[in-house]
Amino acid sequence: MSQLITLEHGSGGQKMQSLIKEMFLHHFNNEQLNNLEDQARIPLDALAQQGDRLAFATDSFVIDPIFFPGGNIGKLAVCGTVNDLAVGGAIPKYLSVGFVLEEGLPMTDLEQIVIAMAQTAKEAGVSIVTGDTKVVARGACDKIFINTAGIGVIPSQCNVATTEIQNGDKIIVTGTLGDHAVAILQARNELALSGSIVSDCAPLNLLTQPLLQHPGVHAMRDATRGGVAAVCNEIADQSKLGMIINEASLPLHPEVTAVSEILGLDPLLMANEGKAVIFVDAKQAESLLATIKSLPFGQDATIIGNVVNSVDGVFIESLYGAQKKLFMPTGEQLPRIC
Amino acid sequence: MSQLITLEHGSGGQKMQSLIKEMFLHHFNNEQLNNLEDQARIPLDALAQQGDRLAFATDSFVIDPIFFPGGNIGKLAVCGTVNDLAVGGAIPKYLSVGFVLEEGLPMTDLEQIVIAMAQTAKEAGVSIVTGDTKVVARGACDKIFINTAGIGVIPSQCNVATTEIQNGDKIIVTGTLGDHAVAILQARNELALSGSIVSDCAPLNLLTQPLLQHPGVHAMRDATRGGVAAVCNEIADQSKLGMIINEASLPLHPEVTAVSEILGLDPLLMANEGKAVIFVDAKQAESLLATIKSLPFGQDATIIGNVVNSVDGVFIESLYGAQKKLFMPTGEQLPRIC
Repeated sequence: MSQLITLEHGSGGQKMQSLIKEMFLHHFNNEQLNNLEDQARIPLDALAQQGDRLAFATDSFVIDPIFFPGGNIGKLAVCGTVNDLAVGGAIPKYLSVGFVLEEGLPMTDLEQIVIAMAQTAKEAGVSIVTGDTKVVARGACDKIFINTAGIGVIPSQCNVATTEIQNGDKIIVTGTLGDHAVAILQARNELALSGSIVSDCAPLNLLTQPLLQHPGVHAMRDATRGGVAAVCNEIADQSKLGMIINEASLPLHPEVTAVSEILGLDPLLMANEGKAVIFVDAKQAESLLATIKSLPFGQDATIIGNVVNSVDGVFIESLYGAQKKLFMPTGEQLPRIC
Repeated sequence: MSQLITLEHGSGGQKMQSLIKEMFLHHFNNEQLNNLEDQARIPLDALAQQGDRLAFATDSFVIDPIFFPGGNIGKLAVCGTVNDLAVGGAIPKYLSVGFVLEEGLPMTDLEQIVIAMAQTAKEAGVSIVTGDTKVVARGACDKIFINTAGIGVIPSQCNVATTEIQNGDKIIVTGTLGDHAVAILQARNELALSGSIVSDCAPLNLLTQPLLQHPGVHAMRDATRGGVAAVCNEIADQSKLGMIINEASLPLHPEVTAVSEILGLDPLLMANEGKAVIFVDAKQAESLLATIKSLPFGQDATIIGNVVNSVDGVFIESLYGAQKKLFMPTGEQLPRIC
């Protein structure tokens, strides 16, 4: 194969066929993809055995840099859509992938990304069954953008949705906040920061699927762009319930605390790529927390606050009991974080 | 709303929420999308009433220019995925959309694109039920890229697949070839060409769904990048059957013939965005042709050749009976044609 991506790799002709066969079929290898039809075909009865509703989600990835501590754009592209399905209570099953490649991208970079996608898909138990590749001239995009869309099945008894959240619910985050954002900041090297923190990029269905065997989970969201602040404000706005978050309880890696203080950033606004915010029945909260701590990617889970009907919007309560409003983020903390 | 797309529109915060509500929910308006969850939820039993298999496809669109005679990148993005589903025999049902927007894109351009998507989705009978928006800094992408993924249902009795193609089958194209490619060439204005041809961009399920009520359809493909040449060569390679195409039978708009002769391009290699290549049982070919001609987007349908086992690969037969090989396209005729 060539050393670099050329426009011909997006032509629909011979070179595109070679790229598909030698790169994508080779690594993603599964029956649906190998058929080389314009669409994957999936028997409905196999899906109906696992649940009664499809979940369907999509995410595009434009992260800069494309390789970072803890992952690369390929791993992120699989986790992102898997997580969007998982937080709806779904068992993620099938992914599509759309690549937009810049002419001149080293073939070895693409292969490393594709290998990460294949490995993460295997870890999450999903198959990449259909795809598309476009190549644009140098300068018309930055290296590589990836879109994934995903299909999952929601088990019949499962009903997690923001409409299920009730006054009194406890708010759990599944681990430390802001790791992804700080890892990317450090990888960009723009701020002469050095550190050892890695992105938390992970397939959260390994945590959500076993968790949903237990009663008391009302709703889940992954706290990506806009962080916990965006998740809580969006839900508060929709549900007309308030939330109070205890500042002292926030699970933070010391390095994230340090970077936040130096740069004046708020970890509650920072992007995560492997953290869910889970709204649970107060009576089940402690036992659910113990379960989450025992599951993959959940060891640092913490109860960070409560749903209340006594306030309007989202508030942070400090160690000394003072409350200040946590607004929906405005401005852009960090472009191309995912 | 702002006049131009800014990085904040991709932040996950307030401005992104406004863009989602005032632009996307406003135009795409449907129950699943309006829920504002991270995933759309679709009852499986409603799908199972229409068929026994899901079809799942994706396509990314990077076309330049984003507005062209006969459509824009939004219309194209809906048609592209609808057509990938339709040629598999599926009834297209649900689409996801992933936008990558360049900072500085005029909001009015985005709205025109979104309106075209909404209109085309309505025409095709599909709903845009989930989405994602990213914004990159000026220069990191060219105006707007769109990915769509789609879910359709394949009726139980339907079995169209390249594996069904047999020796003796007739090859039908559903209309004139190369219109999309020539319309884009003219829109780019690089070659001082002027003309009246418009892209054939259209949702082909309006043709394929009624057609599949009739027996004798073995396989269908849409002839996008790489044109009819890529479709036929790919299938010949997979099926180990040969094909002979009659040069004189090719349905060509006179302007496409003229542009092809001036520029030395082959219409068989040109991209179409609303044309299917259909492989049919020879005995049913004439009656299927008549049906196709009576259906939307099918009035210029023509039988262009035969599947044979007497040759290896794809051949063009000229008016005088001479045969020359039609190879899988190499090189790139026209980057960013879709």
